[in-house]
Formats: sequence, C-alpha cells, structure tokens
Amino acid sequence: MPTQGIGKLDEIIHGRLRLGVMTYLSNTEVADFSELAKALDATRGNLSVQLRKLEDAGYIQIEKSFVDRKSLTQARITKTGKIAFANYVKAIGDLLGNQ
Amino acid sequence: MPTQGIGKLDEIIHGRLRLGVMTYLSNTEVADFSELAKALDATRGNLSVQLRKLEDAGYIQIEKSFVDRKSLTQARITKTGKIAFANYVKAIGDLLGNQ
Repeated sequence: MPTQGIGKLDEIIHGRLRLGVMTYLSNTEVADFSELAKALDATRGNLSVQLRKLEDAGYIQIEKSFVDRKSLTQARITKTGKIAFANYVKAIGDLLGNQ
Repeated sequence: MPTQGIGKLDEIIHGRLRLGVMTYLSNTEVADFSELAKALDATRGNLSVQLRKLEDAGYIQIEKSFVDRKSLTQARITKTGKIAFANYVKAIGDLLGNQ
C-alpha cells in the first residue's frame, strides 16, 4: 500500500499556493512578485506569506532591486529548492502512481 | 505554463492526511478507523477531523457497527469520492506532468 509515502510529502511544498510557486519557478528559475500573483491567481497578502515560508525553508530567495526608480521584488528558486521539488514530485508520483 | 492548474487542485483532497485517506480508500474501497490511523501514521484526533471533512464533502461515508459487542467505525469511499479523486490525480498530473 503506497500510503506510507504520505509522510514523505514535503508539507512546505505541498501547500497548494506554495506548490504553484515551486512549479512555476522550476520552469522559469526566477519570477517577479506581480507575475507570480497573476499566474497563480493569488492575493498579494497570501503570496507574501507563502513566499516567506519557502524562503525560510531555503527553497527560494527573494531579491529586491530598483528598476526605473520602482522597487522590484523577485523570487528565485535555489539549488536546495530544486532538489526538494524533485523529491516532492517523486514522492507524489510514488503515492499516486498506480491510480 | 501549467500553474493555472493549481486552482483545479481540490483543496479537500489536497490536504496531506486527507490525500492519504483517499489514496488508501481508492485501493481498498473501505477501511476501519484503526487501520487507517496505523497505515497513515495519524493521531486518532487528527484522523477524525480529516474524515469529517471528507464526509462533509460527500467523498466518503462513515459506517458504525458492532462486532463482538465492540463498536467498529469504517470509512468507505463514495462514487462522488472516486470521481473527485480521479479528477485530483489528473489535475496534479497535469500540473507536475512536465517536471
């Protein structure tokens, strides 16, 4: 019975919006805050909270810069984040594999 | 970009322990409370809460009976639950498909 794998699901990645962020960044490497909010149909408040959780886990890093005197916040997936996401994809594949 | 699929992930099934229950019941059809708690390494309190959420959504039904004068609580996946779970597996496959 595959359900023993449920414990291997990284809860930090499994949260729905965080999963969306990690999926997006695993494709784009980096994305700015507004782009993520739009792509994931997320409120800015919720996205900030979820990005902070991913940052605290070391899965992403937040980069702040100024472009044309306007502040720009970007999220970039880290090496640790890529490994954790690959492990997550494998774990959920193992769990749901024979469905 | 597949992340538009994040909205299609059924949050009721996506919760980690609830996902474990649905995965287990999609294989066994029915399981008793202790069996689920053991298989999913869940506390009885948390499992009760999560089973109630799945029951409220109509994805499982809870059956109580007496065996040798001892009460037995079983969870059985419903037709609605099977359809919802199949949709969930497809949605997360679409989301993570090209990883």
